[in-house]
Amino acid sequence: MLTGEQLERVCVVLVRARNPNNIGAVARAMYGFGFEELRVVSEYPVALSEARSAVDAAEVLAGAREFSRLADAIADCTLVIGTTAGGKRVQEHPLYPLAEGGGIVRAHLSSDDRSRVALIFGSEKTGLSRDELSYCNWTMTIPMFEREGVRHPSMNLGQAAAVCLYELIRGGDLPASVAVADAMAGDLDRLTILLAELLDKSEYTRRHPASGDAAALRRLVRRMQFDSADAAMWMGILRQALWKIRDKRP
Amino acid sequence: MLTGEQLERVCVVLVRARNPNNIGAVARAMYGFGFEELRVVSEYPVALSEARSAVDAAEVLAGAREFSRLADAIADCTLVIGTTAGGKRVQEHPLYPLAEGGGIVRAHLSSDDRSRVALIFGSEKTGLSRDELSYCNWTMTIPMFEREGVRHPSMNLGQAAAVCLYELIRGGDLPASVAVADAMAGDLDRLTILLAELLDKSEYTRRHPASGDAAALRRLVRRMQFDSADAAMWMGILRQALWKIRDKRP
Repeated sequence: MLTGEQLERVCVVLVRARNPNNIGAVARAMYGFGFEELRVVSEYPVALSEARSAVDAAEVLAGAREFSRLADAIADCTLVIGTTAGGKRVQEHPLYPLAEGGGIVRAHLSSDDRSRVALIFGSEKTGLSRDELSYCNWTMTIPMFEREGVRHPSMNLGQAAAVCLYELIRGGDLPASVAVADAMAGDLDRLTILLAELLDKSEYTRRHPASGDAAALRRLVRRMQFDSADAAMWMGILRQALWKIRDKRP
Repeated sequence: MLTGEQLERVCVVLVRARNPNNIGAVARAMYGFGFEELRVVSEYPVALSEARSAVDAAEVLAGAREFSRLADAIADCTLVIGTTAGGKRVQEHPLYPLAEGGGIVRAHLSSDDRSRVALIFGSEKTGLSRDELSYCNWTMTIPMFEREGVRHPSMNLGQAAAVCLYELIRGGDLPASVAVADAMAGDLDRLTILLAELLDKSEYTRRHPASGDAAALRRLVRRMQFDSADAAMWMGILRQALWKIRDKRP
């Protein structure tokens, strides 16, 4: 079971959610299971304000924070997980079934009392975009029953969030050992930007145009499982290289 | 994991559900996890017909069956489970947290390939009544986060069903040993009626008026964990006693 203090370190991030009832339902599940931190990423602030009347969700919704960029919403998190309906779409990230992914989240929260986990849900219609997924360390899916020749089933946003949060509070054993990368997403974002700049300034991108894909770069950085000290050191290395390139002195 | 054949032996029973969107959401979760058998108990058939447009739920809704009495909806089931929001209400039935109850359901489905499980959800507003709960072998609750001085939180019907069904398909170990009572609910209902008749005809009820409470009698019978042969034998015993009382011969 997660402690109250660990529950506080889980953020639910809704990206481009459009239906206020769904936002209310997510907040209600959070409140029911003891989670507090709701973050909403949207260009339009309408949905959140309309959701505020939902039953049993007032406390969570009152404390919800709005962001216009996903990167800002997850900047203080050390583990960023995208949820996906799975199905036949090509996976560019590690994909864990919920029961397994939940165990890794619990292990992450137990390993370091400054760790903070973001659980990201995409819009009702399209889920998370390839670009949004590129901010994630890995992805998680609720296992669905497969039928021949029909499209992959899905649940509504309120149900998906309730099931994922239930798995987190459900308890159960921790996986035997989990490597914990404790770098904050904000640092990884800065590191990625420095790396992109270096690729550009070093003309690597000109020779290998595919490497200029920002999402591919973000995934590269997330796959490396940085801890915070390593991330800081790598940023120092990249800055130094950039300075050297700009300076042009031998 | 449940096999496809085991999934078919789970019935989701909605009692007095009023909101077609909720019925649609329950059907969608059932479809997503591979369950098929939806039964709706209602005096008004409106809600089910309105729900038929729900996404990803058409197949389940098309096969849904309507009943006017709960007893009829569960008559062919060998394990009947009521879901409850828990909280401070006095429990007259064994109450299991979902993770534990789910294990017992899986064990029941594995133990006998004719076993059939009913999972009952009450109305959005009031849950299951004391009378409705009396048809259940035991009850199950989704563990909620308790806060001082505020009312017990709950989820909406679509979320509660999704979380319960997820627990069933989630997998995990079976409990070490589970006593399986395989009598069908219809038999237990007949047995209860015979028992009530015997209490009446034997004037037991006149001397102990509290024992005439039909719900209390139903709970009594369900607590006894009848297998089908025992139930048949007990019905024979009760019938014989009633015959003897009516006949009045020495």
